[in-house]
Amino acid sequence: MSQRVPIDYGDASAEVRAVFDDIKRSRNVADVNNFWKYLAHDPVTLKRTWESIKEVMAPGALDALTKEMIYLAVSVTNGCGYCIASHNAAARKAGMTDAMFGELMAVVGMANETNRLANGYRVPIDPAFEK
Amino acid sequence: MSQRVPIDYGDASAEVRAVFDDIKRSRNVADVNNFWKYLAHDPVTLKRTWESIKEVMAPGALDALTKEMIYLAVSVTNGCGYCIASHNAAARKAGMTDAMFGELMAVVGMANETNRLANGYRVPIDPAFEK
Amino acid sequence: MSQRVPIDYGDASAEVRAVFDDIKRSRNVADVNNFWKYLAHDPVTLKRTWESIKEVMAPGALDALTKEMIYLAVSVTNGCGYCIASHNAAARKAGMTDAMFGELMAVVGMANETNRLANGYRVPIDPAFEK
Amino acid sequence: MSQRVPIDYGDASAEVRAVFDDIKRSRNVADVNNFWKYLAHDPVTLKRTWESIKEVMAPGALDALTKEMIYLAVSVTNGCGYCIASHNAAARKAGMTDAMFGELMAVVGMANETNRLANGYRVPIDPAFEK
Amino acid sequence: MSQRVPIDYGDASAEVRAVFDDIKRSRNVADVNNFWKYLAHDPVTLKRTWESIKEVMAPGALDALTKEMIYLAVSVTNGCGYCIASHNAAARKAGMTDAMFGELMAVVGMANETNRLANGYRVPIDPAFEK
Amino acid sequence: MSQRVPIDYGDASAEVRAVFDDIKRSRNVADVNNFWKYLAHDPVTLKRTWESIKEVMAPGALDALTKEMIYLAVSVTNGCGYCIASHNAAARKAGMTDAMFGELMAVVGMANETNRLANGYRVPIDPAFEK
Repeated sequence: MSQRVPIDYGDASAEVRAVFDDIKRSRNVADVNNFWKYLAHDPVTLKRTWESIKEVMAPGALDALTKEMIYLAVSVTNGCGYCIASHNAAARKAGMTDAMFGELMAVVGMANETNRLANGYRVPIDPAFEK
Repeated sequence: MSQRVPIDYGDASAEVRAVFDDIKRSRNVADVNNFWKYLAHDPVTLKRTWESIKEVMAPGALDALTKEMIYLAVSVTNGCGYCIASHNAAARKAGMTDAMFGELMAVVGMANETNRLANGYRVPIDPAFEK
Repeated sequence: MSQRVPIDYGDASAEVRAVFDDIKRSRNVADVNNFWKYLAHDPVTLKRTWESIKEVMAPGALDALTKEMIYLAVSVTNGCGYCIASHNAAARKAGMTDAMFGELMAVVGMANETNRLANGYRVPIDPAFEK
Repeated sequence: MSQRVPIDYGDASAEVRAVFDDIKRSRNVADVNNFWKYLAHDPVTLKRTWESIKEVMAPGALDALTKEMIYLAVSVTNGCGYCIASHNAAARKAGMTDAMFGELMAVVGMANETNRLANGYRVPIDPAFEK
Repeated sequence: MSQRVPIDYGDASAEVRAVFDDIKRSRNVADVNNFWKYLAHDPVTLKRTWESIKEVMAPGALDALTKEMIYLAVSVTNGCGYCIASHNAAARKAGMTDAMFGELMAVVGMANETNRLANGYRVPIDPAFEK
Repeated sequence: MSQRVPIDYGDASAEVRAVFDDIKRSRNVADVNNFWKYLAHDPVTLKRTWESIKEVMAPGALDALTKEMIYLAVSVTNGCGYCIASHNAAARKAGMTDAMFGELMAVVGMANETNRLANGYRVPIDPAFEK
């Protein structure tokens, strides 16, 4: 089967269905996103990625919203169109307001700017930061 | 003067000193970091960058700690050594614990991984994310 | 002529046609891809790029399939949509199976994750790696 | 404990030691690399990352050497100094010769070049690649 | 209001209109680009970004065309589709010919190639460059 | 021979020496930079890279200084330490003043910032840019 076709629940193997079921249950959604339907071409990666995401994104020392905004910041920096769309949606669901999104973008923009200023001026690390 | 030499307060122009003074006052520090001492070769960029940073990083819809962690997430994704060191220090100062840093890194790592899985599988954006 | 229009064989200069002919002969294809039709706006770059590609991608110490998968790994990491699509096709043609693609993506994903963990934890290079 | 200190086996918790032991056994090495000693500050990420790496890097449809070279290609593209050093060493151990490394670098270089040419000329994806 | 809808002049606040008016006057255009209409969701970032752009892109030691070409070089390297399209247009308006664009792309491509060769071979910085 | 040792003229093959001689002659320098001494491990890549660089960097529709500044802009964006150092030196030699460097950095920084704002706000390309 070509990798360029999403695998829907009805066409999925038992192994893939088990992951899809866990995603739907954990996220309380009727169907999984395209990301999982494409990863389903490789059931081992599907399972490992889902289990890692579930572990990493669970609230801990950081709450779910903060984690989603960090995810979005990385996706925006990398310019991953799918990831920006899906994690923007996830962050919204977790409580990100328009104002929070606006400030998030402002920080991401500034960080990308000053990262290059630091590179270009070849700024040596201050001894105080090395501790 | 070569751009590869930091400009210390004692050697700075009045224009640069005014910015350095504002940084020291705003951050309550005795001296500014190397980043500013190198940017001082271009007083216009120094002033604009500091004023932008001050505006962007001020607590608003997002608190100072969240902003510093987002900054760090971007810097880690870009692999900017100076920025990782300085914003790790800033995030620590704003209250980032070891546990929070660990979870931040875990999210940044996962986001960089799944960004590439989404790219490689060329996953189309779910219609629900386009709204 | 606007750079946003592909240059087809029929409209190409003799210089461009010579490169197109060599691509068609070397790859045994009826027509060249869009990539070459756009590069044709700059015949010098067209020629240099094609000759470099031909030299670099020829089987040597690494076989053609391995080279195409490495090319794809880079394109996925950079998020270049055109390059992912074209080098996925080229890798398939060179023998990449679904299982190989799946493992390739898994490695690319992990590498992008651990690259950031190494950056974020600022891991110093082990002396053994410096030899 | 500051995150900027590697955690050696002697100072590690039982949880961390279990992972270190598995790395040493799997790789048949006397000690683990700095990467793991720094990740040890976050035992959950340490365990998940090691188990993912072990699964992803095991020979399958692709052999161990091909996987290491793909890992290196990504690390070189991202400019991650630690990762380049450690995966160069790993690829050498898996059998990468000087000639193979040279061709790997040539492909990585060309891919990064043509990724930008495709971006800059805004080349649309050929219909044949969309199947 | 959803962030995924551009804010047109007619629907904009007085604060946003003031920025739009300044953009239209400075650039002598009838309407602002989408970039500004989306940023308008965050009037603070809109204002700061426009004022920074106006300051940074004004002719100084470098003329407007050189600045636009540098902007385009960065956007091509980052693979930002919107930015490539808009700054290509801006560079054309500032006088970039087809031949200049072709050479710009050739340099951007080579720089991305040799950046990775330098990374992969882990070339130490020549002492002469450190002065 | 390990790839981590530069190959000096005295130890180089005739093939490598021919390239080194051409670099020294073309650039009117007494010795070649480390970049070439490391690439010398792969004479084919050494030769191809040098010939491409020589062709691409020759003055044409863009002068040598503009080309060096574009090269530097890309290297700063990618965070390639060696490339930033060497192309900063080359740009200085070609006539880049402190003021020009400052403005170059300001543009590179802004471009990296707005690239992410465009990504994050998912700004659609204005129809006018598609022509």
